[in-house]
Amino acid sequence: MAVYTHVPDDALEALLEDYDIGALVSYKGIAEGVENSNYYLETEQGAFILTLYEKRVDPADLPFFLALMDHLAARDIRCPTPIHGRDGAALRSLCGRPAAIISFLRGVSPRRVAFRHCGPLGDALARMHVAGDDFPMRRTNTMCVAGWRPLFEKCAPRAHEVQHGLAGMIEAELEVLEAGWPAGLPEGVIHGDLFPDNVFFLGDEVSGLIDFYFACTDFYAYDLAICINAWCFEPDGSFNVTKARHMLSGYRKVRPFSDDELTALPLLLRGGALRFLLTRLHDWLFHPEGAMVTPHNPLEYYRKLRFHQSVRRPGELGLD
Amino acid sequence: MAVYTHVPDDALEALLEDYDIGALVSYKGIAEGVENSNYYLETEQGAFILTLYEKRVDPADLPFFLALMDHLAARDIRCPTPIHGRDGAALRSLCGRPAAIISFLRGVSPRRVAFRHCGPLGDALARMHVAGDDFPMRRTNTMCVAGWRPLFEKCAPRAHEVQHGLAGMIEAELEVLEAGWPAGLPEGVIHGDLFPDNVFFLGDEVSGLIDFYFACTDFYAYDLAICINAWCFEPDGSFNVTKARHMLSGYRKVRPFSDDELTALPLLLRGGALRFLLTRLHDWLFHPEGAMVTPHNPLEYYRKLRFHQSVRRPGELGLD
Repeated sequence: MAVYTHVPDDALEALLEDYDIGALVSYKGIAEGVENSNYYLETEQGAFILTLYEKRVDPADLPFFLALMDHLAARDIRCPTPIHGRDGAALRSLCGRPAAIISFLRGVSPRRVAFRHCGPLGDALARMHVAGDDFPMRRTNTMCVAGWRPLFEKCAPRAHEVQHGLAGMIEAELEVLEAGWPAGLPEGVIHGDLFPDNVFFLGDEVSGLIDFYFACTDFYAYDLAICINAWCFEPDGSFNVTKARHMLSGYRKVRPFSDDELTALPLLLRGGALRFLLTRLHDWLFHPEGAMVTPHNPLEYYRKLRFHQSVRRPGELGLD
Repeated sequence: MAVYTHVPDDALEALLEDYDIGALVSYKGIAEGVENSNYYLETEQGAFILTLYEKRVDPADLPFFLALMDHLAARDIRCPTPIHGRDGAALRSLCGRPAAIISFLRGVSPRRVAFRHCGPLGDALARMHVAGDDFPMRRTNTMCVAGWRPLFEKCAPRAHEVQHGLAGMIEAELEVLEAGWPAGLPEGVIHGDLFPDNVFFLGDEVSGLIDFYFACTDFYAYDLAICINAWCFEPDGSFNVTKARHMLSGYRKVRPFSDDELTALPLLLRGGALRFLLTRLHDWLFHPEGAMVTPHNPLEYYRKLRFHQSVRRPGELGLD
């Protein structure tokens, strides 16, 4: 939770001269987001978010992310809309960083997920998948099965610092996933990181999906698996079947979920758990001294993975 | 620049039930303020700031600060107005901290102070002094001459870590200030910390004064001295006479500045410089490991104090 780059008022005022959104009225650094610096920005025309992309985002990916938000917003998905400057460009430069102004979305992220959140979340996820179906750009998912082993090899020598025997467990899991990872499931643009932090609600309705900076091309069902892992476990580690059922049923009302997708789900859930176990393990072991962001405990996803390793059929998760 | 206390949505929604400002629409932790946790808060009725008071603010002082903001706002000073709950109280409790909702002020703090800012700042400072003149509460300035020596004694054994000979220089300065500190100057409520961060501008007009959590009862001229120190030195350490003149002249258009106050100003400027040298030295030496806030470099105020030690008459500062 940090602002990495401090934007002086004169630099921001100069940036705004490239836009048609009026003069600067107020801005505040927001203590949210672990990847980028974000500012709440108010101009004579309303509220926006100013994002400066920091080193964890590859600038080469930014045109994909911004075009995707444009595409989805044009199809009535409640997501940030990039604001284009007078020259038509949404991606600009500020304080030496790539930067963009996007629309401000109202709503509140639930700290405690209730099952009433899960149906609307499934619905919103499916709508996003459908709306992205004709998005013409592709981006490889660097955080999927092919990307896990290099990350593992970097972490393996120190994995025991987090949990005794962790490297061996991950190695065995990797072999299972690499051998059995499905092929040919319906694919398209996925969000890839749709944790409760990235979803706004107003009452029981989803009012916004944010933070598309892990979006990529992959199986739709893998996106759902990431959501189930993020939304359907209780703080004590138990799996909440009711939440998972509501999420799948909300999803299915919008987009069909095939038998192949359902059959693959237990393995996709293992993969989704391993993905966050590995990235959190990496950040835990290698976060720089004095970093402003406290890394997530990787063991939360270790426990989720352990749970999924014992599941053979979707019916055991309440899903059919 | 940090949010120390994370407020979950359900706790905030419960708090808002005590107010008549509508339901929660959005909130974001703000990466500003080194003392407290602040949130940008939007309800159905508009924008507000939610402040949670952290350990550096004495809860016993909060009624003074909130009553002062009420008093000043009622006299058309552009400062945060505490929002009162249905029971009439502005001070409440959230996540185990004292908390208050105050009005949101538009405007932008100048990163680079220009002389065009200094006249309006002097004007706004004087208006605040005049408006506070009939404020009935008092609060001793713990950061004035009587409070410096205890702070110095805590820092002295380690002051050489910051600058060779620093303890000796401060000791000598303390003797001068303790012996010569003026008495009987006009006094009342001062802001005490009116740095550019705490002043909003819209164009060339002051649109808000914020952060009254060092406000106390002291000489008005000492408040002006703090402002001159904070606004009238250039980044290279040189003193900008034009800025100081504009500030005093803006001040004088609103409130007379007596000959006694002017004569005392060189010593008040030394005191104001020592006050921030000492508090910054303290925070530099004793800030906890892993603190989210980077302390200010105390040497900035060491250099300002050195400058003022060579000044005998206000005329040398361009002030008469």
